[in-house]
Amino acid sequence: MTDRFIVGLLGAMAYGELSAFERLSSDARFSPTLQDRAALGRIAVLEFGHFESVSDALIELGEDVESAMLPFQSSVDSFHERTRPADWYESMMKAYVIDSVSADFYQAIAKFLDPATNSLIERIMAADDTSSVLQRRLRSMLDDDPRLASRLALWGRRLVGEALTQVQRISQENGFIPGISTAERQQLLAGLSRNHSRRMSQLGLTA
Amino acid sequence: MTDRFIVGLLGAMAYGELSAFERLSSDARFSPTLQDRAALGRIAVLEFGHFESVSDALIELGEDVESAMLPFQSSVDSFHERTRPADWYESMMKAYVIDSVSADFYQAIAKFLDPATNSLIERIMAADDTSSVLQRRLRSMLDDDPRLASRLALWGRRLVGEALTQVQRISQENGFIPGISTAERQQLLAGLSRNHSRRMSQLGLTA
Repeated sequence: MTDRFIVGLLGAMAYGELSAFERLSSDARFSPTLQDRAALGRIAVLEFGHFESVSDALIELGEDVESAMLPFQSSVDSFHERTRPADWYESMMKAYVIDSVSADFYQAIAKFLDPATNSLIERIMAADDTSSVLQRRLRSMLDDDPRLASRLALWGRRLVGEALTQVQRISQENGFIPGISTAERQQLLAGLSRNHSRRMSQLGLTA
Repeated sequence: MTDRFIVGLLGAMAYGELSAFERLSSDARFSPTLQDRAALGRIAVLEFGHFESVSDALIELGEDVESAMLPFQSSVDSFHERTRPADWYESMMKAYVIDSVSADFYQAIAKFLDPATNSLIERIMAADDTSSVLQRRLRSMLDDDPRLASRLALWGRRLVGEALTQVQRISQENGFIPGISTAERQQLLAGLSRNHSRRMSQLGLTA
């Protein structure tokens, strides 16, 4: 386990959370009701809280937050460019897919990390009901308008494809988890994809 | 003092804060450095906190937050449409002008309100260093690039003009403060304008 890997991991997380915050709060404006706008805003604010926790961790390690984030800026930005939601429904789905795939990813790699980083990641990821709030809202959207199902199923597939590519790209830039074998790595990615399919099925969507 | 006036006032504040949150966090993306993005994001998150405090106050009064905000949605939205910042510098100036003019406005009308609403507004507006953070950042921007001064001075003038029109429009929609005379009202608006000029001068800008 090298320190550089941890700094890179935290830098990627920090930039990911900061971008998620900005994208979600911009998308909030297109919500169908003011109540939904407030709900999406609240989720964005939680992401900003994550960004601040990760930043604090980097500062504690004596690292400069900006320098840690910079190497990941262009790939995260281009991920967002490739996955611009066409409307509020797609924003909600995107928030849900990204939130849950990243949580899964961080959980999956946690076992390869030293105990301190492991518990840091647990702390950042825990105590946050973003995923269940989004899931409930998506479910009620789909109940209200079943015609959304095929469009959102397709969109979910595209998102998870891009998200997995993103995980691989960032991991390559940062050096994949030190000490992980090719088999373990394939297993990890297959696990992310499987969990995603399960979540889509729970929403009644074909993954 | 009628309850409807208070509900209207809180509704306007709530929608104003929610919109400010969304606009600021969208604009954050165009910041020159990641550090500035984080700083603008942090200010946006504070605005969201204000929105939540005002929402809580409305709920305590037994009011529906969404219904209280709705009457002000189109005028606030059109204010933002008319004052779209062209770049990050203009975003910062807009944030500063709106934040300080609204704080002044709420403070100025506080004396016409009942003690409970008065202290609620004090609570929401206090304990927040948004204005001084923005002022410091604007000052250092102007030091770094003095050519910005004339553009930002012009922009500041337009913003305050629009903001005062906005205050009058919202006040008319909501019925201006009950019991206030025409002279007191003119005085209030003149005070807002005077404070703005003083702040612009402090930045070395011609108001």
